[in-house]
Amino acid sequence: MERLFLAEGLRILSEAEESGTLPAEILFTENSEDHPRARTLIAATEAAGGEAVRTTRAILSKLSGKDNPQAIVGIYPELETDLAKVDRSQADIWLVAQALRDPGNLGTMLRTGDAVGAGGLILIDDCADPFSVEAVRASMGAIFTQTIATARWPDFLDWLRGGDGMLVGTSLDADLDYQQPDYTAPTFILTGNESAGLPTDYATACDLLVKMPMRGKADSLNAAVATAVMAYEVLNQFRR
Amino acid sequence: MERLFLAEGLRILSEAEESGTLPAEILFTENSEDHPRARTLIAATEAAGGEAVRTTRAILSKLSGKDNPQAIVGIYPELETDLAKVDRSQADIWLVAQALRDPGNLGTMLRTGDAVGAGGLILIDDCADPFSVEAVRASMGAIFTQTIATARWPDFLDWLRGGDGMLVGTSLDADLDYQQPDYTAPTFILTGNESAGLPTDYATACDLLVKMPMRGKADSLNAAVATAVMAYEVLNQFRR
Repeated sequence: MERLFLAEGLRILSEAEESGTLPAEILFTENSEDHPRARTLIAATEAAGGEAVRTTRAILSKLSGKDNPQAIVGIYPELETDLAKVDRSQADIWLVAQALRDPGNLGTMLRTGDAVGAGGLILIDDCADPFSVEAVRASMGAIFTQTIATARWPDFLDWLRGGDGMLVGTSLDADLDYQQPDYTAPTFILTGNESAGLPTDYATACDLLVKMPMRGKADSLNAAVATAVMAYEVLNQFRR
Repeated sequence: MERLFLAEGLRILSEAEESGTLPAEILFTENSEDHPRARTLIAATEAAGGEAVRTTRAILSKLSGKDNPQAIVGIYPELETDLAKVDRSQADIWLVAQALRDPGNLGTMLRTGDAVGAGGLILIDDCADPFSVEAVRASMGAIFTQTIATARWPDFLDWLRGGDGMLVGTSLDADLDYQQPDYTAPTFILTGNESAGLPTDYATACDLLVKMPMRGKADSLNAAVATAVMAYEVLNQFRR
């Protein structure tokens, strides 16, 4: 059975269309038909064989889990890719999340991935659902531009070592400052679980283990923030 | 009337104590008394004149808004500081949030501020509550280490221009790459509202307006992520 996910709002649905993706179903309130962009999207969805459904704010509120829902939402088939089909040569940066449990963090990583020109996000172990409403919302449309693949760790390593790629883990236990190494493309940035960080054997399998300077008392960063700081360092090196 | 806020979990309460802050009231389930660290905290709270209350998971669940609450929580007086009392010379980096509406973003900014050794977070205009449960949770203890001040924009500018300080705004409309300028301490990093960005006149008042490279289609970053990428660039310059 095909799995579906929900994306909300005219802006995101428009970005999806620009990336070549139309919803299987588009739901909207009466008012939103007054908006020319909404009318175009509804027409395009129907022309592509999708369903267009006029509905109420109450229904959209239920669907989105928000008291104040967007006036237009799309329902899309999930876009998950088999790791074997991922073409690593398409981008210089790839993000890898290990047991990330917060869907907001996954969505934020997708958004950051889009910003740095990453190819996509590879999910290892028991991650949150990247197609959950919260993750899709946080991705701000990047759910449609970033490749998403799921793999078990040994399978990911097999795939990774079957081609070019530098695996860089971030860890509070690392000695190496994240600005010291020369990163080579494609760089795979591996971020571990929000509480536990990377398991030791995962860290050992990395080509490099780096840490950001920590000047404070708490000695850690939000996982999506750490990924972004790391990703911009890699991008900054590549664009020099 | 004194305003109070809630912080959850043994780790955060311990970090608060290390920063010299004990709760006005500490609530805990029977089981948590088995934990030596919890017993120490409870005793310290009572010794400092605070109240210690044994309670149920159901009550803690109500307080935290979580089905699966932490077994120990502290209730603290809010720590907001008058801007006039902020000593800018205490840190090289300060974060400034303008109309940030997501409490999770504020908490994440506090956590990042702690990591980069920032002095604190200054809130401009109608921001979310930094002492809300969600913000405190996302701050991971940084609510106790970062100075928090609230100011109206004209008052902030008056205060800022009364001493040293470079005001750096991040904006998608800026021409200047964020790695080009030489930042000088103290640098104040100004981040605008999640949807609207900085108002034009606010951007005009900045000493520098910079942007991060954007390689994707969505052309934006999460506000807390943008702040962190910027803050690490400034920190990296200062530590060279």
